[in-house]
Amino acid sequence: MRKPIMARIVMKFGGTSVGDVDRIRNVAAHVKREVDAGHQVAVVVSAMSGETNRLVGLARDVARLHDAREYDVVVSAGEQVSVGLLAMALQDIGVAARSWLGWQISVQTSDVHGAARIEAIEPEEMEAQFGEGRVAVIAGFQGVSSANRITTLGRGGSDTSAVAIAAALKADRCDIYTDVDGVYTTDPRMVPAAKKMDRVSYEEMLEMASLGAKVLQTRSVELAMAHNVRLQVRSSFDAPEASANGNDIVGTLICDEDEIMETEIVSGIAYARNEAKVTLREVADRPGIAASIFGPLADAAVNVDMIVQNMSADGKTTDVTFTVSQDELERTLGVLKSATTDLTFADLQAAPDMAKISIVGVGMRSHAGVAQKMFQVLAEKGINIHVISTSEIKVSVLIDVDYVELAVRALHAAYGLDDDLAG
Amino acid sequence: MRKPIMARIVMKFGGTSVGDVDRIRNVAAHVKREVDAGHQVAVVVSAMSGETNRLVGLARDVARLHDAREYDVVVSAGEQVSVGLLAMALQDIGVAARSWLGWQISVQTSDVHGAARIEAIEPEEMEAQFGEGRVAVIAGFQGVSSANRITTLGRGGSDTSAVAIAAALKADRCDIYTDVDGVYTTDPRMVPAAKKMDRVSYEEMLEMASLGAKVLQTRSVELAMAHNVRLQVRSSFDAPEASANGNDIVGTLICDEDEIMETEIVSGIAYARNEAKVTLREVADRPGIAASIFGPLADAAVNVDMIVQNMSADGKTTDVTFTVSQDELERTLGVLKSATTDLTFADLQAAPDMAKISIVGVGMRSHAGVAQKMFQVLAEKGINIHVISTSEIKVSVLIDVDYVELAVRALHAAYGLDDDLAG
Repeated sequence: MRKPIMARIVMKFGGTSVGDVDRIRNVAAHVKREVDAGHQVAVVVSAMSGETNRLVGLARDVARLHDAREYDVVVSAGEQVSVGLLAMALQDIGVAARSWLGWQISVQTSDVHGAARIEAIEPEEMEAQFGEGRVAVIAGFQGVSSANRITTLGRGGSDTSAVAIAAALKADRCDIYTDVDGVYTTDPRMVPAAKKMDRVSYEEMLEMASLGAKVLQTRSVELAMAHNVRLQVRSSFDAPEASANGNDIVGTLICDEDEIMETEIVSGIAYARNEAKVTLREVADRPGIAASIFGPLADAAVNVDMIVQNMSADGKTTDVTFTVSQDELERTLGVLKSATTDLTFADLQAAPDMAKISIVGVGMRSHAGVAQKMFQVLAEKGINIHVISTSEIKVSVLIDVDYVELAVRALHAAYGLDDDLAG
Repeated sequence: MRKPIMARIVMKFGGTSVGDVDRIRNVAAHVKREVDAGHQVAVVVSAMSGETNRLVGLARDVARLHDAREYDVVVSAGEQVSVGLLAMALQDIGVAARSWLGWQISVQTSDVHGAARIEAIEPEEMEAQFGEGRVAVIAGFQGVSSANRITTLGRGGSDTSAVAIAAALKADRCDIYTDVDGVYTTDPRMVPAAKKMDRVSYEEMLEMASLGAKVLQTRSVELAMAHNVRLQVRSSFDAPEASANGNDIVGTLICDEDEIMETEIVSGIAYARNEAKVTLREVADRPGIAASIFGPLADAAVNVDMIVQNMSADGKTTDVTFTVSQDELERTLGVLKSATTDLTFADLQAAPDMAKISIVGVGMRSHAGVAQKMFQVLAEKGINIHVISTSEIKVSVLIDVDYVELAVRALHAAYGLDDDLAG
């Protein structure tokens, strides 16, 4: 395993971490620690917390329907302020630093304003300044289009910026500083025995991120996986001095499976409340039936999650069940009812107040009986399973929301994830 | 005289004019009026009022001594927000518009961050978009250095931006929208009979601007004079519909003397309170004596205004009198006392609570007796003159501050400036 001596590190701090002048100073202290350790450092920062909302609000007040290009001009001002202030704070404690805006680097993106994709990064000038011992303070979330206009990557895009910058700089690590100290085996507020994971694979993190463990943007984890960027999640509220002490993992390292010596069969338990189940009974079973259901929903931008289809008893019709966010249930039913010309079914049933529980782990690929254990644990607690859905490294079940705590705690214990030290 | 049919116009709005969403909409309505009249329009805007102060405060809180380059990154964000919002507001009322930041145009400046000078403007891309009927919404106050970093022109630099843009675009007129409806013959709060001037020459405006009629930045008037940009000062609080109605001058036009058909001998009366007088008695009269007094003051960045030197009775020594701002009096005396090794004088006298009254007018070049009339009017009112200083188009006198209203009103009437309609 590589040891980062004189490494090149990208550090990313979100809006809460730069929320006021004192916090910006705290960020500067974190950066100084890495510089003092001899590392080359690029820092990616978001807008001060509340600032993006303020700017978005102004834009909305001026015009309900507004030009996305001008929206990007307005909201990208937030990161511009942060990078200038952080560069000043670093200089103030003796760390050479300069700010970089998206167009200065440049971070070239597509021209889909408000949701642009990074296409290329030209890090040569920044790299030259590393040679002079200067920290690069980079505005996250923003880039520049081929038309030389400011673009933004969409909300939360600063994580993506950081990973893309790390890939372009061939950084040894990309540290995402956030308000939690790492990724846990499940939500510690629900299960006090939840353990912080030292390492988790990209694949597992992706399953957990999209399942409601909202530590990292899914998009940034995908990008890290694609470019093999080692991501570390750690807390920006730790004292800046508290560092590696021999072990270079302070928070949780998200890395390639190969870097994880011994993988747990199940790494973590994720859950998502606020789910609703929709069932179409006795749908005519013919080719294209799925498209006739989910096409109109996609057109209406309804996000469908789990989908299960079963042949009915008579072999002529089929039952289709799927889940949507509870907030979108009413809209979903409206779309299906107005789409009935193409679609024939005997009954349309809806059940709100569901929760999805998932067990995630790359180890389950090579282990049989992992899912069976889940079903057994839930059965022992008298919890009814409405829908089951599986992937290579994940098993998800839909249950009544009332049982979510009970289910998560029982599964967490059953898969041996409880912290030995905690209760 | 040219009539602006299908003219190219630069409109400039300060921070108060774009202070909130409603005011931004009002600015958009002003712009629409000019577009509807068939003009090509570039709008230069400042940051929303209070925003620059907020950003400057943040920078100061982060580090008392800060890198001017980073300061410029932070404070220039204010104009960035304004241009995006105004472009949206214009689009919302059906006016095609796009925002331009300093680096996009580009506005190339020196690298003196925080007080940069504009060196070149490349308006070709903007001009191409005029052809497509699009309004250019331009961030004032900012530019870009040869090192590709954001620069700012210093406080109030948006007036200068507007004039420079107008010169580069060969605009027919540069309209400065402000919180007064024009330039007056004197302060209307002091003299109710003060008249708004229709036209005033650059030279007169320069004398009045530097004498305390704070409508326009001196620097922007100098630039307008150098490039022969016709400047119009008008109120942004007028109803946007209230326009030219035949007469194309709504506020006050600042233009070349040649454009002013009949010039008044005296165009206006300016005044400045908060002056202090310093007199050095019996200074040894030898070459270089002025330098030995004003050199140390310049080094200490004391702004010296009027300077008068008189031979003393014995012909061997001289008396030197000058004025400074009252706020700088103490510091001035300190500098002179510590500089006495080079400088010998019998006595150092200081008098605070002075005011400077000036009569300004290009017409006085060709008229004798203008100054004499001023002295006579003041004498009739029993007002003692402490210092007299003259230029080609100006006579200034220093009097006790208690008499300032009396003096201004008497002179305003004596030179025939009182509005016939007012009291």
